Amino acid sequence: MKKTRDKMRGLAPGTLVAPEGAVVPTGMHVICYDAGSLEETIVESVAELKRFRSSGRVLWVNLCGLGNTEMLAGLGALFGLHPLALEDTLTVRQRPKVEDYKENIFVVMRMLHFRGEIDTEQVSMFLGRDFVLTVQERPGDCFEPVRERLRNGGGQIRTQGADYLMYSLIDAVTDNYYPFLESLGEVVEQLEDEVVDRPTRQSVGKVHEVKRSLLQVRRAIWPLREAISTILRDESPLLGEVARVYLRDCYDHAVQVLDMVETYRELAGGLMDVYLSSLSNKMNEVMKVLTIIATIFIPMTFIAGIYGMNFDSMPELHQSWGYPAALGVMVAIAVFMLFVFRRMGWLGGKRED
Amino acid sequence: MKKTRDKMRGLAPGTLVAPEGAVVPTGMHVICYDAGSLEETIVESVAELKRFRSSGRVLWVNLCGLGNTEMLAGLGALFGLHPLALEDTLTVRQRPKVEDYKENIFVVMRMLHFRGEIDTEQVSMFLGRDFVLTVQERPGDCFEPVRERLRNGGGQIRTQGADYLMYSLIDAVTDNYYPFLESLGEVVEQLEDEVVDRPTRQSVGKVHEVKRSLLQVRRAIWPLREAISTILRDESPLLGEVARVYLRDCYDHAVQVLDMVETYRELAGGLMDVYLSSLSNKMNEVMKVLTIIATIFIPMTFIAGIYGMNFDSMPELHQSWGYPAALGVMVAIAVFMLFVFRRMGWLGGKRED
Amino acid sequence: MKKTRDKMRGLAPGTLVAPEGAVVPTGMHVICYDAGSLEETIVESVAELKRFRSSGRVLWVNLCGLGNTEMLAGLGALFGLHPLALEDTLTVRQRPKVEDYKENIFVVMRMLHFRGEIDTEQVSMFLGRDFVLTVQERPGDCFEPVRERLRNGGGQIRTQGADYLMYSLIDAVTDNYYPFLESLGEVVEQLEDEVVDRPTRQSVGKVHEVKRSLLQVRRAIWPLREAISTILRDESPLLGEVARVYLRDCYDHAVQVLDMVETYRELAGGLMDVYLSSLSNKMNEVMKVLTIIATIFIPMTFIAGIYGMNFDSMPELHQSWGYPAALGVMVAIAVFMLFVFRRMGWLGGKRED
Amino acid sequence: MKKTRDKMRGLAPGTLVAPEGAVVPTGMHVICYDAGSLEETIVESVAELKRFRSSGRVLWVNLCGLGNTEMLAGLGALFGLHPLALEDTLTVRQRPKVEDYKENIFVVMRMLHFRGEIDTEQVSMFLGRDFVLTVQERPGDCFEPVRERLRNGGGQIRTQGADYLMYSLIDAVTDNYYPFLESLGEVVEQLEDEVVDRPTRQSVGKVHEVKRSLLQVRRAIWPLREAISTILRDESPLLGEVARVYLRDCYDHAVQVLDMVETYRELAGGLMDVYLSSLSNKMNEVMKVLTIIATIFIPMTFIAGIYGMNFDSMPELHQSWGYPAALGVMVAIAVFMLFVFRRMGWLGGKRED
Amino acid sequence: MKKTRDKMRGLAPGTLVAPEGAVVPTGMHVICYDAGSLEETIVESVAELKRFRSSGRVLWVNLCGLGNTEMLAGLGALFGLHPLALEDTLTVRQRPKVEDYKENIFVVMRMLHFRGEIDTEQVSMFLGRDFVLTVQERPGDCFEPVRERLRNGGGQIRTQGADYLMYSLIDAVTDNYYPFLESLGEVVEQLEDEVVDRPTRQSVGKVHEVKRSLLQVRRAIWPLREAISTILRDESPLLGEVARVYLRDCYDHAVQVLDMVETYRELAGGLMDVYLSSLSNKMNEVMKVLTIIATIFIPMTFIAGIYGMNFDSMPELHQSWGYPAALGVMVAIAVFMLFVFRRMGWLGGKRED
Repeated sequence: MKKTRDKMRGLAPGTLVAPEGAVVPTGMHVICYDAGSLEETIVESVAELKRFRSSGRVLWVNLCGLGNTEMLAGLGALFGLHPLALEDTLTVRQRPKVEDYKENIFVVMRMLHFRGEIDTEQVSMFLGRDFVLTVQERPGDCFEPVRERLRNGGGQIRTQGADYLMYSLIDAVTDNYYPFLESLGEVVEQLEDEVVDRPTRQSVGKVHEVKRSLLQVRRAIWPLREAISTILRDESPLLGEVARVYLRDCYDHAVQVLDMVETYRELAGGLMDVYLSSLSNKMNEVMKVLTIIATIFIPMTFIAGIYGMNFDSMPELHQSWGYPAALGVMVAIAVFMLFVFRRMGWLGGKRED
Repeated sequence: MKKTRDKMRGLAPGTLVAPEGAVVPTGMHVICYDAGSLEETIVESVAELKRFRSSGRVLWVNLCGLGNTEMLAGLGALFGLHPLALEDTLTVRQRPKVEDYKENIFVVMRMLHFRGEIDTEQVSMFLGRDFVLTVQERPGDCFEPVRERLRNGGGQIRTQGADYLMYSLIDAVTDNYYPFLESLGEVVEQLEDEVVDRPTRQSVGKVHEVKRSLLQVRRAIWPLREAISTILRDESPLLGEVARVYLRDCYDHAVQVLDMVETYRELAGGLMDVYLSSLSNKMNEVMKVLTIIATIFIPMTFIAGIYGMNFDSMPELHQSWGYPAALGVMVAIAVFMLFVFRRMGWLGGKRED
Repeated sequence: MKKTRDKMRGLAPGTLVAPEGAVVPTGMHVICYDAGSLEETIVESVAELKRFRSSGRVLWVNLCGLGNTEMLAGLGALFGLHPLALEDTLTVRQRPKVEDYKENIFVVMRMLHFRGEIDTEQVSMFLGRDFVLTVQERPGDCFEPVRERLRNGGGQIRTQGADYLMYSLIDAVTDNYYPFLESLGEVVEQLEDEVVDRPTRQSVGKVHEVKRSLLQVRRAIWPLREAISTILRDESPLLGEVARVYLRDCYDHAVQVLDMVETYRELAGGLMDVYLSSLSNKMNEVMKVLTIIATIFIPMTFIAGIYGMNFDSMPELHQSWGYPAALGVMVAIAVFMLFVFRRMGWLGGKRED
Repeated sequence: MKKTRDKMRGLAPGTLVAPEGAVVPTGMHVICYDAGSLEETIVESVAELKRFRSSGRVLWVNLCGLGNTEMLAGLGALFGLHPLALEDTLTVRQRPKVEDYKENIFVVMRMLHFRGEIDTEQVSMFLGRDFVLTVQERPGDCFEPVRERLRNGGGQIRTQGADYLMYSLIDAVTDNYYPFLESLGEVVEQLEDEVVDRPTRQSVGKVHEVKRSLLQVRRAIWPLREAISTILRDESPLLGEVARVYLRDCYDHAVQVLDMVETYRELAGGLMDVYLSSLSNKMNEVMKVLTIIATIFIPMTFIAGIYGMNFDSMPELHQSWGYPAALGVMVAIAVFMLFVFRRMGWLGGKRED
Repeated sequence: MKKTRDKMRGLAPGTLVAPEGAVVPTGMHVICYDAGSLEETIVESVAELKRFRSSGRVLWVNLCGLGNTEMLAGLGALFGLHPLALEDTLTVRQRPKVEDYKENIFVVMRMLHFRGEIDTEQVSMFLGRDFVLTVQERPGDCFEPVRERLRNGGGQIRTQGADYLMYSLIDAVTDNYYPFLESLGEVVEQLEDEVVDRPTRQSVGKVHEVKRSLLQVRRAIWPLREAISTILRDESPLLGEVARVYLRDCYDHAVQVLDMVETYRELAGGLMDVYLSSLSNKMNEVMKVLTIIATIFIPMTFIAGIYGMNFDSMPELHQSWGYPAALGVMVAIAVFMLFVFRRMGWLGGKRED
């Protein structure tokens, strides 16, 4: 995006510039349907799209890749899209949002992917009276179930209009968050066990990683919730009553995803404290071992040191009971120390501490 | 739920799929009453329910188990329920919410259970003009007191309509939170004593556990409060004036539960700090013991070491006062060290530190 | 309350059950007044109250103790109180709140007491057109100044109506928070000095205790502020213009109390950090002492150890300068070490660290 | 204030009681002006004020000291002030606020002073149609620039009414916050350097102190911002269009002060963490010195100890290479240990750690 | 600013005083354009500007430097600017804001610069019906792209009015935040790696520094977002429909910048915890080394000490197996200790801990 921004600085707003390294789309995937019929095809130029527009059927055009700005400009002209919306489509770090441009509604969402770590891809969507245009960064999406439902003709999707199609697509994106959250939830639970029972140095990195991923998901879903709420409050005539009811359900899903994100964030946040306390506990244990050994042996070694002195007149040295007595004193010291430590609860540390 | 979601992905919204491992209900528990009469029975098919509907009495149907989607679909058809509401009924990780579908109001709540740890069960409720339909995940609920009041005919429950019954059921769920919160409150108080007075390694796990449980309760009660507030603001004609007043009381209960949850959360949050400081204190004590022992004996052992050297010309060694003098110096060092430690307040550590 | 709740579960809402261990009131304290006259008496039955009601004067009935549910029911009947309000009166862990039951306004407040630690007592209040009914858990309250003003007839209290009396009582409760907060404020200031200058192990317990007390006060005053604000927004005809102006002042007091609570909470919160840093400082000091002693004496003891070896051919042992040289090396090591520690700023630790 | 409150408890609201130790004012400072003339004088009784009131000019009365309640009551009567406002004037721990009493507007602000630590003084202000009355706790204020502008007749202050004077006074109080904040900002920056580079035990006390001062300033400015916003929203006819525009500017200043307070609070909050980490770093360093010395010398001392044993048959003792070999082993151990520590990066600790 | 404020205290509001050390502008940069023509020049006095005003074209005057208050006053008179706005222009620590002075709109923004650390410069902007006046503190800005677009005549900038020019300038400032945020984001990511993998003492200073910079950016962008939102809500006729749509896009950019700031702040906040845990880990490691060495050698040294004693009757000393046996016991102790440490997982610390 940095490059994009750099390139774009100095250009008039609405000038279309493809982001660095954008995928060049080879064609547009078109589904055109009404209750009775469905036509699915790949078209390669905007001109071919025209015949679908006047058919009275719902038209869904899906473009995978932002590398062909002319094609996008052509789509903009065909469907009457606002230049700013087209520019946003190409600026791939948009926050999810909804813009109502009277003749059409522009929706930006972020689709989750997993490539080593959780990553998000921008999906732009335009809803008109009888069409939906979706633009993705790359091939590969979570819309297949919707396509399947369209092909099968089950449910009401074929009998409803473009607004219901838009709902279905937003819902597909939202539903796609669940498996990610569930696996993040599992990671959090696993980290809870790890951090409480056997914390390692890697734990803290993992906790940070999961917090980062949750932040990522939150940045994608929080504004999406806001955006759906905005559509619902909006009086746009493009959105029928039925689609509104279903979108309200979709809003509930977004709220629920957010609720899960917040719960996991809170749990992950608490783990850091647990980890720190667990480090302190380990340090305590190490120090206890050192202290026990040192405080038992240092006085004994001192006794030994005394009788290792070479003074001429050390009467004890010449008594036959001298050696056993010295040993006895040492043992007595050791026993006394052990007794003190036991009373302080330092021995059997595992039970008490 | 993961499985459910996976199975559901690709299906039209409103398609009814039972969650994995759902309990298959053996029948529906029916109570049909008016001020003068009450009929309580178990029916096995939706068809049998029909005769109750036209009786002019209030009908309460309770279904325990989500395993029979046909029965649920039948109930949906009989009572005119919205497909999305039925779908939500089967998606068992819903947040508490209220949806007003004009002809009926759909309420989702979460009932607390204790199975080793605090767990929640989804209760869906539909309120129509003259019926209440409740759907639980499993047998075993907190509605028994309501049934008892219905059977006894005490209070106004029999003379009021279905809306009052709904209030009674919501109130039963809310009331059910108190014992859980009280036991969590006791755990928190007990942990406070434990952490301040005799913290063990298990304490931190327990604190984390109680925070987790409180988070669980909060996730269940926070949206319920919102939901009740939504019903109250709502102008739905299904809800009479009397039920509204009582529901307002129920809202107060939810607010109070939330207040308790927040208080306990705050106290539990502070415990982690107390625990960490208590660990530091223990470490300080361990280190002091080590330091006292080491700083007393190391210099003395050094003296002993000097007179253990084998130099030919060490005049002190051959004096008769040599040995007592060496011992005297050692004792002097020990006494001086002890004096220094006493002044630094390290001895009698229990009183000062 | 636990018991109460347990007992109540299964009862119709509005059923009056005295809380466990409730004080049985021996009578009701009655003050009936107008601008010109005041009658103060103790009545023992609700029946006796009736003659005061039709007197055209303002009637204040004060009931101390919740143990007599029949008396309460009688009062409910006499003054036309809502069963839910009466139930709330007996449920002694209510949050402060205001309910407008058209013919009367129901207010719940919490009075602070000090019994070893800060404790709260529920005060319920009903305002009607010409009466105020107050219900306390126990004898002993903060209303005496109001009674005194009524008896003296000073100010406008006798010339105003029941609404002004209600204001005076709410104000008395709010004013009562100040001494508690001031003593908590003193505790916080004292803890600040203690924690910075001479932290002991007890400090952390005290900090936790004061945070707990502040939480307690906050739980009582926060909803009271909300409640007063609700009365003020409310259009209830029971509340005259004069009482409204005074109540607004009372609202300011509640806001100010809350402001003090929040300030003390923030200060107390910061103390924990200060305490932890102070523990670390002490540990640092202990470790420095150990390290200084050990690093000075360990090398010297090693030198002594070398010349304590019994090898046949150790030429130094037989030189007359051997012993003084060995001692000289030891002193040199000690001096060098002390020099290093001085440069590292470890000596004179009190000034630097 | 404690005393005040204690004295006041039991008094009717609106009874005027001077706070303990209040300064007894010797007179009132009066400035009476219009575009063409200005009269400045000290009057000693309220009676003398009367002649200024009917002059058609703007009258500013400034009273320094709360010790003369009769004078205040007289002012109240003269200017038609509400008893509650007068009571608030004497209760010197009010939060900043604005009360609109129809015929006049009552403003409470807090002026900052520096007496060893940051302290606040209450300034009460009444705005009428043609007068402003200000009441301070003590002589000494930040209004001198306003007086100077009045005397000079520069700007529009003399041509505008009492509302513009009130704006000028509020603005003078707000402007007075800047130097305090700037010096607090400098303290924070200085503490940042101190804590990162050479933290001492005093640092934590200073950080706590600066947080406390910022809390103090925040308590004074936060409600003032609210209060000014309330005046602006208010439709009071006492406030003309011009004064409103200027007051909006004053509101911006308050917001900016608050913004600075919050920034410094956040920075000061972070310093505690930095300090704790810096303590840990120092401890680490101390421990490393101890560990390096101990782990080098303990094994060497052990070798020396072995050859200090008095066994009859220790062949090495009688070899001529015995002593050099033992010394060689010791040196080898020392070199090996140093090599290990260098690889672990413990030596040259200053560069790495 | 301190000086400025000090100088200003006592002056009437609206008096123009240049801030200390302000740059004295050498002239004003003027661009005057309509769809067909563009004139770009430097003028040195306000008088020369007059001829541009009546030209019916859009006039953009840019002043770099606040050192010439007369020029500014002249501009104020020419364009009819409010004295308070001119004063704000000279008070260079304003928060971003928008003031609607009916005949013109006054906007304050902060432009980011990098001079060693992130610094902000105030840009004031006045929008009239047919002019835009921008005032900067110093030469050097981010408006060059806008100038370029004007000169090139590309896009709609030349065909739209002054409002569109204002939008373009606000957008240029907002766009300018991205590279700063991106470099801050890279610093945060780099610090994440550093703190988790190889934390040094400098890390904590860097984390604090980046938090400080983010706070700086946040202080600049947060109120700008509010300000743009205020313009959009405002009904000012100075702002046409087209500019409004574009400004909404600009608002989205501000929200996105803020979103990035908050994300980085959260990540940076978490780094402190990670760093502290990493310090604890290092301490643990140091202590383990010390403990392992000490607990192995102390007992062995004690054994050596025993047989270094000079008692006459120590039978073991005279046995030929004495010496090997003593060595054997020592080795046995060492092996046992190593075994215990291995079982406690202290050896191979890198893998486990």
